Amino acid sequence: MPAGRTVVIAGPNDPGLAKPISEKLGAQLVTVQEKIFPDGELYVRISEPDTVRNSCAILVNTLYPEQNKSWIETLFLTNALRNTGASMVIVVIPYLAYSRQDKVFLEGEPVSISVMLKALRNGGADCLLTIDVHNPLSLKEFNGCAINIMVSDVLAKKAAEYTESPIVLAPDKGALERAKIAAEAIGAEYDYLIKKRDRVTGEVSVEPKELSVEGKDVIIIDDIISTGGTIALAAKKSLESGAKSVILAASHSLLVDNAMDKIKSSGAKKLVTANTLNKKFTESIIEVVDVSNKIVDVIKTII
Amino acid sequence: MPAGRTVVIAGPNDPGLAKPISEKLGAQLVTVQEKIFPDGELYVRISEPDTVRNSCAILVNTLYPEQNKSWIETLFLTNALRNTGASMVIVVIPYLAYSRQDKVFLEGEPVSISVMLKALRNGGADCLLTIDVHNPLSLKEFNGCAINIMVSDVLAKKAAEYTESPIVLAPDKGALERAKIAAEAIGAEYDYLIKKRDRVTGEVSVEPKELSVEGKDVIIIDDIISTGGTIALAAKKSLESGAKSVILAASHSLLVDNAMDKIKSSGAKKLVTANTLNKKFTESIIEVVDVSNKIVDVIKTII
Repeated sequence: MPAGRTVVIAGPNDPGLAKPISEKLGAQLVTVQEKIFPDGELYVRISEPDTVRNSCAILVNTLYPEQNKSWIETLFLTNALRNTGASMVIVVIPYLAYSRQDKVFLEGEPVSISVMLKALRNGGADCLLTIDVHNPLSLKEFNGCAINIMVSDVLAKKAAEYTESPIVLAPDKGALERAKIAAEAIGAEYDYLIKKRDRVTGEVSVEPKELSVEGKDVIIIDDIISTGGTIALAAKKSLESGAKSVILAASHSLLVDNAMDKIKSSGAKKLVTANTLNKKFTESIIEVVDVSNKIVDVIKTII
Repeated sequence: MPAGRTVVIAGPNDPGLAKPISEKLGAQLVTVQEKIFPDGELYVRISEPDTVRNSCAILVNTLYPEQNKSWIETLFLTNALRNTGASMVIVVIPYLAYSRQDKVFLEGEPVSISVMLKALRNGGADCLLTIDVHNPLSLKEFNGCAINIMVSDVLAKKAAEYTESPIVLAPDKGALERAKIAAEAIGAEYDYLIKKRDRVTGEVSVEPKELSVEGKDVIIIDDIISTGGTIALAAKKSLESGAKSVILAASHSLLVDNAMDKIKSSGAKKLVTANTLNKKFTESIIEVVDVSNKIVDVIKTII
């Protein structure tokens, strides 16, 4: 693909990634006008259409908070970039909402992520970049260049700053690959947690399949923290089993309802997270890691 | 197209049209389960998938209120109907939101209605029926069977019940076709209003191009009443110019902000509107006309 001139468009739901991406690419940063009409309809417009014409346009817009509104923003802006004459449209969606509805679990359901990816592709996106999507296989529904960027290594390196003898744990078997990437980045061992309920006492135990947490600084890594129940329980149980400390790491920290309270009372020392959401984190327990470098590295392989 | 078995699916934003449509077609009515996850993601499911399999499925879901959410519902349900094995999917969207952004007015804009129609078509809808869309030409973007159903005749007949010597007026030249259909349904004359501002006094006049409103029962008909400013001014000015009475008629009465107040203080006797929105009208000045017959007539030509 010929390089050409590149511009980066900061969507209304940009989590602060557009600016560092544009700077690292040496590309112009373009803003978007947005308003809501009195009836609730959304209006968006690329601020400097002349800049976009014949360029390789990189739109950055994430899908949390306000999944529905921000998805429609993304589709409208993709269309606007096409209308304006962008020669290539790369859409960076750091957090891809609806990624957990990736198959028909119960008959009568939609495959929501498929609906979204097809609408985006048919709507004019040449390429989609996203960070640590729930199920990378679901990206094939985009039917084009769709790339999942893992940031577990970056998160693990930051988490390791708070540890002396770390091990990395996935909250379940399905998340083991993520834990492996994280562990390899810091030269630690890794495992996944198994949740068991004692048939007699009813007590719940959460233990690694093989490793022991005793005396270890445990890094528990997951893709999404939503209500926080699973990861907070894992932290609490690890400390009860003799872990020296627990650091949580997640690509996308939605932290809905009282998730923050659960995490604080779990005994975890830190929550390390990526800047994939349009959300300000004010709690000192949270450390946000900028993942723009990872995105830029991938963009450079495309343009 | 072979008839086959037909089912009608009432979407979460059905304005009460699914039931009468199903009854008039002798078709089974199927409901939808909807929930919102703690993080704000939408979940929908067709309640009786077995009923939908191999059927001609007619989904009814309107796009006001909550345009963005209800659009995504509509896309997800269209996908769910396809996954469930419906042999044909007809989507009835009584009020098609975003229909006013039907071209690039300013460079850098999307054509929002085109984005919506393409996503729906590519998402598996065979046919789209809508009521009195802002610009019927925009439906070509669906690139399939997309039918605009005019209800001005039904609205005019109801409005005429409150009149003795009616004339029908469009608020502007662009809406003249709608006024013509309405006028012909009740054997009245029609015209459109011209708004002028006196260069010296600054006073605004609103007069029909040719006809006189004096002594007439004026029916002012439009597609959408949003904030109500235009139609309320037209009503007020018509009464000032000697109209005996004014009846307002609109296909879609969104009535945002203080539109209701404007309409009441305009002196209009009634607002006749169609049941295209998922909105309860409690004001006695509003008379809601059921347009399910019009929709059923069109469905019968398709299935």
